Amino acid sequence: MRIIFLGTSAAVPTVDRSLSSIAVDVGREYALIDAGEGTQKQIMLSGLGFGKLSRIIITHLHGDHYFGVFPLLQTMSILGRSRPLDIIAPTGFSLVYKALKEITPTLTSYDVRITEVNGESEFRFSNCTIKMFPVDHGNTPTYGISIKEDDKPGKFDPEKSDKLGVPVELRGILQRGIPIKLPDGRIVRPEDVMGPPRKGAKVVFSSDTRPCDSLRREAEEADLLIHEATYDDDKKERAEKTGHSTLSEAIEVGVTSKARKIVLTHFSARYKKEDLERMEARIKEKYNNVIFARDLMVLDL
Amino acid sequence: MRIIFLGTSAAVPTVDRSLSSIAVDVGREYALIDAGEGTQKQIMLSGLGFGKLSRIIITHLHGDHYFGVFPLLQTMSILGRSRPLDIIAPTGFSLVYKALKEITPTLTSYDVRITEVNGESEFRFSNCTIKMFPVDHGNTPTYGISIKEDDKPGKFDPEKSDKLGVPVELRGILQRGIPIKLPDGRIVRPEDVMGPPRKGAKVVFSSDTRPCDSLRREAEEADLLIHEATYDDDKKERAEKTGHSTLSEAIEVGVTSKARKIVLTHFSARYKKEDLERMEARIKEKYNNVIFARDLMVLDL
Repeated sequence: MRIIFLGTSAAVPTVDRSLSSIAVDVGREYALIDAGEGTQKQIMLSGLGFGKLSRIIITHLHGDHYFGVFPLLQTMSILGRSRPLDIIAPTGFSLVYKALKEITPTLTSYDVRITEVNGESEFRFSNCTIKMFPVDHGNTPTYGISIKEDDKPGKFDPEKSDKLGVPVELRGILQRGIPIKLPDGRIVRPEDVMGPPRKGAKVVFSSDTRPCDSLRREAEEADLLIHEATYDDDKKERAEKTGHSTLSEAIEVGVTSKARKIVLTHFSARYKKEDLERMEARIKEKYNNVIFARDLMVLDL
Repeated sequence: MRIIFLGTSAAVPTVDRSLSSIAVDVGREYALIDAGEGTQKQIMLSGLGFGKLSRIIITHLHGDHYFGVFPLLQTMSILGRSRPLDIIAPTGFSLVYKALKEITPTLTSYDVRITEVNGESEFRFSNCTIKMFPVDHGNTPTYGISIKEDDKPGKFDPEKSDKLGVPVELRGILQRGIPIKLPDGRIVRPEDVMGPPRKGAKVVFSSDTRPCDSLRREAEEADLLIHEATYDDDKKERAEKTGHSTLSEAIEVGVTSKARKIVLTHFSARYKKEDLERMEARIKEKYNNVIFARDLMVLDL
């Protein structure tokens, strides 16, 4: 699974940070989590292309998290897309989509299948299960996102396989999880020649939120927690008032949930490039598993 | 009057061209003509600031001409705008605005006064009269824009004024167009001491269109005709089919209407920077009053 940070600025874009959007690329297809204004341009710059985009997930209906959906839909239409696109968004999204489609019929040349969520929900995406769970962003229904890759089969052990007399041409069947019968009548089961299943990666994204228990629970031993950190620690009051988190609050969530890596994102536009570099250096003195997202940063899991 | 080209790409943004938007800056305030995605970022880069923006005019409801309005509204709301904003757009725009305002109530913290137009219309903007007139962009109701600055008073002639015995402290009254009575009873009228009125500038913008007579009429002796030129001449068929103009077609409109200067814009994203430079060089061999717009280009009239 590859995570690409397309936009890392909160509320307002800056010269070097675009608005919220994260791509989750699983190879054959990718999903976007949020799509603030400018997302299509970031997709162009990232090299992802538009063809593999199969799903857009909107965490909440603040403009900086979804106003980039419509220009993106329009561009794919202009480029001749015919493949359907799934959009999963909080209740209300369809109202805007329908209004736009009415006044701008060229918006989409392809089927847009909108699922509106109003509470916890779970769906499949390629070899992953994606869960949307409520977080704490004031009055606006907002969902954190957990992405759990399926466990992968254990490692095939050619030595064990040979010892049991499995012909080389039958190894693949066992690797696909199917038992085989040898010419002499003996049954060989996959677990006889494979190591223990390997855990799939777990990635959790906070969306916009105060630190909250639902997030701590979901992020339990995550390989990667992506947490918003709109404000530096001196702006805690402002964070509380606006339903956001400070640097230290975001890190606390990651530490208590034992997330292996913590990526902070969604920085207020008040922080210039140098401010963020200074903040990151300060954090790195204390934590070696925390990094600050920047636009077009790529993480492989 | 200052014209700033904020975005000059057609339909889809490119790495160095943002989507359609032109700022008309008259000093105390400015208007935007169209606002494709990314317009707020272009405003930031242009140095215009958000405070002086008083009006947004949308020429037609294709996404690349108006999807940037909503993120821009949102940003001004976040920045604490309280001053009302006028939006003039083709019928249908309110439907989308209302839907967005319903699902994202934070969209605007200030009054947005929407005027929907469905046919020719005319309104005042500072010392200008702006006219929206139908052009020919296929099935989509689309308006060209003519901006006519009020004529300015003629030049004050201090020699004539002295000859007539006008005291220096009374010159300003004549300059403001008001006759004065001298101590000896003689009346001096403004035209006695001022040259002939100077014509205000006229700027005409085609929006997206095939070459058409309404445009030729409006552009008659314009100081500046801004005409779309989506395609190079070898794509005339495509221009016809999509309701756009080629380079030569756009120039023909400017030449027949005797526009003093012609700026071409709204280039298809298929043309790279080098292609456009080549096209411009070719055109410049024949016409010395034609220039190609680029993002953030400034013209003073």
